[in-house]
Amino acid sequence: MKVAVDAMGGDYAPDEIVLGAIQAAREYINEGVEIVLVGDQVKITQALDRQGNWKELNITVHHASEVIDMHESPGAAVRKKKDASVVVATGLVKQGICDVAICAGSTGAAVAAALFGLGRINGIERPAIATPMPNLTGTTVLLDSGANVDSKPKHLVQNAIMGSIYAEYVLNIPRPRVGLLNIGEEESKGNEQVFSTYPLLKQLNTVNFIGNVEGRDIPKGTVDVVVCDGFVGNIVLKLGEGLASAILQLVKDSIKASGFWTKMASMFVLPALKSLKKKLDYAEYGGAPLLGVNGGFIICHGSSRAKAIKNAIRVAKEFTEQEVVAHIRETIANEGVLNNEE
Amino acid sequence: MKVAVDAMGGDYAPDEIVLGAIQAAREYINEGVEIVLVGDQVKITQALDRQGNWKELNITVHHASEVIDMHESPGAAVRKKKDASVVVATGLVKQGICDVAICAGSTGAAVAAALFGLGRINGIERPAIATPMPNLTGTTVLLDSGANVDSKPKHLVQNAIMGSIYAEYVLNIPRPRVGLLNIGEEESKGNEQVFSTYPLLKQLNTVNFIGNVEGRDIPKGTVDVVVCDGFVGNIVLKLGEGLASAILQLVKDSIKASGFWTKMASMFVLPALKSLKKKLDYAEYGGAPLLGVNGGFIICHGSSRAKAIKNAIRVAKEFTEQEVVAHIRETIANEGVLNNEE
Repeated sequence: MKVAVDAMGGDYAPDEIVLGAIQAAREYINEGVEIVLVGDQVKITQALDRQGNWKELNITVHHASEVIDMHESPGAAVRKKKDASVVVATGLVKQGICDVAICAGSTGAAVAAALFGLGRINGIERPAIATPMPNLTGTTVLLDSGANVDSKPKHLVQNAIMGSIYAEYVLNIPRPRVGLLNIGEEESKGNEQVFSTYPLLKQLNTVNFIGNVEGRDIPKGTVDVVVCDGFVGNIVLKLGEGLASAILQLVKDSIKASGFWTKMASMFVLPALKSLKKKLDYAEYGGAPLLGVNGGFIICHGSSRAKAIKNAIRVAKEFTEQEVVAHIRETIANEGVLNNEE
Repeated sequence: MKVAVDAMGGDYAPDEIVLGAIQAAREYINEGVEIVLVGDQVKITQALDRQGNWKELNITVHHASEVIDMHESPGAAVRKKKDASVVVATGLVKQGICDVAICAGSTGAAVAAALFGLGRINGIERPAIATPMPNLTGTTVLLDSGANVDSKPKHLVQNAIMGSIYAEYVLNIPRPRVGLLNIGEEESKGNEQVFSTYPLLKQLNTVNFIGNVEGRDIPKGTVDVVVCDGFVGNIVLKLGEGLASAILQLVKDSIKASGFWTKMASMFVLPALKSLKKKLDYAEYGGAPLLGVNGGFIICHGSSRAKAIKNAIRVAKEFTEQEVVAHIRETIANEGVLNNEE
């Protein structure tokens, strides 16, 4: 299996991207994972050399002369810069040279590159980013977490189908519970968008729709797949990340502020907190797939460091091995409700 | 100052409501606070008697024969049940007998009762619930947190003005920083709703608009007033509450799971966690005002216990003393942008 990694995208590119690739190549050396680093050949080779001996690893470099930065208009930049690293990485998937692409640069540019480069699966109108979020007992997949805003009910229905497949095949959750994010449990609740989506979700054959869920259900872990518009999903995701790190900071501060014995105690408690921090750390989850495009495409946080990139390569590997794209294609073709809906 | 408390609304009514009222009456005995408990006279009097000697306190009972429960359609119930406790409590404010009403029952019914009973301030089309959320350094006001969905840009503009006044006069934040909740900082980001709201907010004279803010900015405390649609706000609020309690649970569990010395240590650390939990506890904030109606109206969590009710009475007192309704009326009348907008 071949993974194309955009080595130029993200706040810490290329060094942390390259280091993550090396760590993954070492970890999966016997599992047939080949990594293709895409971007400025000179810069990437220098970054590889800074990490020492990489030449026995399954890593190659594919040159791309341009980079799309965070402040460019995504659509225009993707059309104009045909040799941008993210565009070239996507092209490698399109051409069948690689199985899946990974990108930690501008999310807008990544989504645009995937849409233009790979196209959409038949029956999917708007691909969605499916982000795993930690909960009390495991993981909840949130989608869409930011690929599209102002979605129509049918787009949310497509999200439900895709998210359910991802949870089942990659997160190994049998018959995942799929909920519609809303402001109350009753069917009559919500804005126009979710109110019209509810009856459509009830008609799905392949989705275990459990009804409306509320914000508090995400951390509780009473739902496996949360369906929402990308505007709401992105706010939820960033609030979740921000709140987790703020609360852990408050825990540390309040322990430190409470006197000598507590300080002593904190010597023993802080390691426990560290392990909790790990559990809540997005970097452990690595990357979020863009579901609905014709090919594997994993989007990483812009602030990804080596660990996040390494884990994104693991996600890319599982995504490919589990043939998620083929499952989505097949299920969408079989779900009657989508054909009845204009 | 007279506070009308709906004693029949909420999961723990009437006992916890009555107990909270007694606690507040004791605490504010020298500050001229009179509490009128509204609802079934027999049940309320029995609940009062169960708490012992309350007769020297500034508490009276105002009979109302009906109750609106959580599952009734709010608008219909408020119109039909003219002697419902929440309707009668609102009427006491309308008639000038009380200054402010407090309700922990169905939020929908509370909003409907306030709208029908008090009417809207001139220039405000949709009142908003302004909920305080704890952050790393203090408090952020989130509005609307659930009174209305599918708001138009002008409604968000009205929220910005009202939230800024509340933060300034009740939370004592001079020149509060007001942000528009969005999925990126750039002016070009977002869905139709916030994209069209941004230029209107820039034109406001009385609001210190700092631009778009993201989900992560709320816990960070880099913004004082967060403006959003009630659909998004309600999801944010419930996610925040749920996540805070889930993380504190995880902290406790991970300390307990990590062996003898850590267990010893936790004896000293758990008190620190308890004080943190208090900081993150919605009950400490008590209640959220419904801003934009012609009178004081405070909405409490349905699961409010005595402490939350006591604190809601404190919020009601500050709301009244600071003359928030008059400030909103005056500012809305002076803000030119609202008159230019259809």
